[in-house]
Amino acid sequence: MKDFTFYNPTRIEFGQGKENNIGQYVAEYGVSKVLIVYGSERIKKSGLFDRVVASLQEKGISYEELGGVVSNPVLSKVHEGIQLAKEKQVDGILAVGGGSVLDSVKAIAAGAKYDGDVWDFFVFKAFVQEALPLFSIITLAATGSEMNNGGVVMNEATKEKFALMAPSLFPKVSVISPELQSTVTREYLVYSAADIFAHCLDLYFSASYIPTFIKGHIENILRTVIRTTEILLEEPDNYEARGEFAWAATQALNGSTFTGVEGNSYDTHIVEHAMSALFNIAHGAGLSIVLPAWMKWHKQQNVAQYERFAKEVFGVEGADAGIQALEDWFKKIGTPVKLEEGNIPRNAIADLAENAHGLATNWGVGEKYTTQVITEILELA
Amino acid sequence: MKDFTFYNPTRIEFGQGKENNIGQYVAEYGVSKVLIVYGSERIKKSGLFDRVVASLQEKGISYEELGGVVSNPVLSKVHEGIQLAKEKQVDGILAVGGGSVLDSVKAIAAGAKYDGDVWDFFVFKAFVQEALPLFSIITLAATGSEMNNGGVVMNEATKEKFALMAPSLFPKVSVISPELQSTVTREYLVYSAADIFAHCLDLYFSASYIPTFIKGHIENILRTVIRTTEILLEEPDNYEARGEFAWAATQALNGSTFTGVEGNSYDTHIVEHAMSALFNIAHGAGLSIVLPAWMKWHKQQNVAQYERFAKEVFGVEGADAGIQALEDWFKKIGTPVKLEEGNIPRNAIADLAENAHGLATNWGVGEKYTTQVITEILELA
Repeated sequence: MKDFTFYNPTRIEFGQGKENNIGQYVAEYGVSKVLIVYGSERIKKSGLFDRVVASLQEKGISYEELGGVVSNPVLSKVHEGIQLAKEKQVDGILAVGGGSVLDSVKAIAAGAKYDGDVWDFFVFKAFVQEALPLFSIITLAATGSEMNNGGVVMNEATKEKFALMAPSLFPKVSVISPELQSTVTREYLVYSAADIFAHCLDLYFSASYIPTFIKGHIENILRTVIRTTEILLEEPDNYEARGEFAWAATQALNGSTFTGVEGNSYDTHIVEHAMSALFNIAHGAGLSIVLPAWMKWHKQQNVAQYERFAKEVFGVEGADAGIQALEDWFKKIGTPVKLEEGNIPRNAIADLAENAHGLATNWGVGEKYTTQVITEILELA
Repeated sequence: MKDFTFYNPTRIEFGQGKENNIGQYVAEYGVSKVLIVYGSERIKKSGLFDRVVASLQEKGISYEELGGVVSNPVLSKVHEGIQLAKEKQVDGILAVGGGSVLDSVKAIAAGAKYDGDVWDFFVFKAFVQEALPLFSIITLAATGSEMNNGGVVMNEATKEKFALMAPSLFPKVSVISPELQSTVTREYLVYSAADIFAHCLDLYFSASYIPTFIKGHIENILRTVIRTTEILLEEPDNYEARGEFAWAATQALNGSTFTGVEGNSYDTHIVEHAMSALFNIAHGAGLSIVLPAWMKWHKQQNVAQYERFAKEVFGVEGADAGIQALEDWFKKIGTPVKLEEGNIPRNAIADLAENAHGLATNWGVGEKYTTQVITEILELA
């Protein structure tokens, strides 16, 4: 076990209908006016928005709203949110949506308390000192953003998809209501599964040291994702499977998998963020393309771990068989594994490699992930 | 998944020498004078106490001290601590020791802010409204008390070993320094292993519903305990094993194993607390006696789960074989499995059953755990 600090004060309110208590949760933190941030108008059509507003109003909490957050959330929308938060003097922010909404909300919460450009935080020109308290009702399980203090946003001008992280950016309360997630499309379910796999496997394979206890923790998450995804593809309304899938997704990126680990990096995410930035592919779809390719490129660096993965997660023997089993499983559930399947032309590899190398440099692994290395990986996809 | 709230704001500082930063951790919470609570004088002889004091003084934090907390911590010592905390006007409490010190500190932290008798909290005559901020340096992994908000204390007058729990009783910061734990005796290592097993298995078997994801989480904890205990019996200074053992112990009672679970109770703890109260047996030793007996009595109520346990934890087939494997493992590591081995005379069963039934009633399962049922269980031990 390597030294670590574990701190995660987010309160999770998990269960059926808990979104109807959001007014109470927000009120407990002394917030009187929130900015509700969401994606498409779907939450209005479904009645969720009205239920949220009713719950807030019951506790005397007023609100402003900002819709239109897109997958692969963009900086311009974050700027819009910051301006609105400042103008309307809200004292809290509520995300209602998936990972992209939550990520945007984290940037808005930090930017609303900062005089400079919020992008400064993403490029380490400044560090988040304070933020508005933030809350979430998560409608898509995948990113773990509901229980961590990080967020990823794309700067459209520079085509950089970068991250910010700060102690003040843990949501105060996040609602996980499995029923709300049961309307997620088949497509986004399998992309989410790929995203969770990538969160786990980036760490599992890249770490120079990982405690056996944590290997077991990650394998349990992955087995849960496999089992529940298969159930949900057959029965989208299976509440138990939806709930376990959601909670496994949260655990995959709430810090618990990082405890005692050393030398890990976000290898597949580095490559995928370039794909999202240049081609606006769904994050999970990009990851399911990158992951098997990266594993093929990487396996020689950590063969024993690949053998363990094969056995513990897919019940097969040997590093190659494990990678093949994952690729086969991605095909089976219907998420892409080749660039072409994601509509990414092979002649874009050079641009992708350059963009990804920029992020690798920003994240301190630019020497490992040169454009040449990233090119090699992408050519395997 | 059943509805749940998960909230655990304790910050864990895990690693070698982190106890030497305790002054900094305490100062971050604005505390200027702490009551240091500990057990035996061993922490003075080892130099730990001096290092703690030096770290506090470096940050300008003054201190009072209270030693002499015993295993199966007693109410009279808690009263002493509360009086001292009030008289000396400390604004924080620091536990340096194992679970019994931490449990005492929680009661002191609550009692120091209460005008009545702290025992009121244990018998639900009153509820903890506020508490002094508390910190810990844990020198024995077992109870998980370093990352939860509960504590168990024995009332010597009534021979009741009861618990208190409150949102304000999470430690602000707990230091887990594996090296500090390497001097734990062989005896207390194996008692700790039994304690962790009981924390996990009370839940695992008694729950009327438990998500498969959580079953896997618990099994991973138990496999880790088996593996690391065996290493530590051979090599007490094995840092990796000590660290994994400690972190698994924390996870076993930090709330993570309870998420989405329904209908669980602390069955073996109910019986064991009576044994500790009447015979002052080490808690873990009492648990290793009760656990296999309780499992034999209980297995018919949940056969499938016992079969799963056998396979996933010990790699054997069948409910009975799993129970036998656990009993054999307890014998192998050298923790008692029969009343006689714990120096508890068989003619005490009636008194034990009566005492345990009292706690069962206090914890809301008095109808299930009648004196007759508890007698049956103890007769199997």
